[in-house]
Amino acid sequence: MDGVKVIEIKKSVFEDNNKDADNLREELRSKGVYLLNLMSSPGSGKTTTLIRTINLLKDKLRIAVMEADIDSDVDAIKIKEATGIKSIQLHTGGMCHLDAEMTRQGLDALETADVDLAILENVGNLVCPAEFDTGASRNAMILSVPEGHDKPLKYPLMFSVCDLVLINKTDVLPYFDFDIEKCTEYVHMRNPKATVIPICAKTGEGVDRFAEWLVEEVDTWKNQ
Amino acid sequence: MDGVKVIEIKKSVFEDNNKDADNLREELRSKGVYLLNLMSSPGSGKTTTLIRTINLLKDKLRIAVMEADIDSDVDAIKIKEATGIKSIQLHTGGMCHLDAEMTRQGLDALETADVDLAILENVGNLVCPAEFDTGASRNAMILSVPEGHDKPLKYPLMFSVCDLVLINKTDVLPYFDFDIEKCTEYVHMRNPKATVIPICAKTGEGVDRFAEWLVEEVDTWKNQ
Repeated sequence: MDGVKVIEIKKSVFEDNNKDADNLREELRSKGVYLLNLMSSPGSGKTTTLIRTINLLKDKLRIAVMEADIDSDVDAIKIKEATGIKSIQLHTGGMCHLDAEMTRQGLDALETADVDLAILENVGNLVCPAEFDTGASRNAMILSVPEGHDKPLKYPLMFSVCDLVLINKTDVLPYFDFDIEKCTEYVHMRNPKATVIPICAKTGEGVDRFAEWLVEEVDTWKNQ
Repeated sequence: MDGVKVIEIKKSVFEDNNKDADNLREELRSKGVYLLNLMSSPGSGKTTTLIRTINLLKDKLRIAVMEADIDSDVDAIKIKEATGIKSIQLHTGGMCHLDAEMTRQGLDALETADVDLAILENVGNLVCPAEFDTGASRNAMILSVPEGHDKPLKYPLMFSVCDLVLINKTDVLPYFDFDIEKCTEYVHMRNPKATVIPICAKTGEGVDRFAEWLVEEVDTWKNQ
């Protein structure tokens, strides 16, 4: 198996993460780099979704990925092998989230001079990552069908901070009691402006809509 | 819908959580109360599993449940309605875990004088709850089939601290690439002594084995 760069992330020393995140966002904007912060529960299909999406977009956009995990390098290796794009692994050393300074450490290691779209796959966790602005241009999340449509009721902050909610694993809808309409209603209770896109990363269904959303976002970001 | 007691948990002031947890564990032992700390990702089926299990055990053991959630009271109400046992809701106010002092606040509100088995349904999160000893007699967790069998590789601490791992949603095994043998092997890499029980909370399959495990545990605890 081909190796990837692995970065051991250090704890931040900055006290004002919000300010630091705003600074990072502006730096990225001036460099023409759009950063997507992708969050979800463990096992919702972040890596599979990214592989599908990157393979649809890699001829249109220059993409690079940071895979954050407490341990293990499997995700960064998977992305690199399945898409051929630049992919590095960030080890959080037990930490349950990334903040702006930690994200900056990752971006420095990733080297983004030739990148249009950088994607941060955050730690699998519906609670803590929502509390820390990473400096990303946008926050997105994946909720998978087996997790249940009630999650926006139980993890309000995560759904409030996300501009895009992907509902993944729609192929198993027949086997679970999951109501997409009700879920969308709950998402909009938390964030009325959130875009909701049902997808199936396994079969590819709906992933083109996510890819289109990203192309528009990157385009708008670069021309603002 | 019938209401339940809702406790707003306050942040702990104790500095040494491990010592506080050991004290709580000994207090519970002297009172003959066995406390199970049940952890998992969001949507893995903790509440459904508890309902099945409690209905198998409620004539043998006096059971009470604390449902921890950042927001919402749906789980405590569900447990109360489906089993008739004593059930309260703990609101963590955004906090991603419970420690011993927070658990003690819950136990005080639950009133455990007439309880053999108290169950804490922890916040849905595979990262932070593993870092804090709640003072429970034992830690257990649920990993559901749709989350994938690689989770012990990615969330090492959670699997290290659990004495029991329930693999839930076995009814959807045909639709997911989940290898129970491989998962058990990964669990044992983290904790060689962990008991692994595949269950399906929806159909009830395997839940009797979890119930037997609990009866033995409570019995041993009371006679030590």
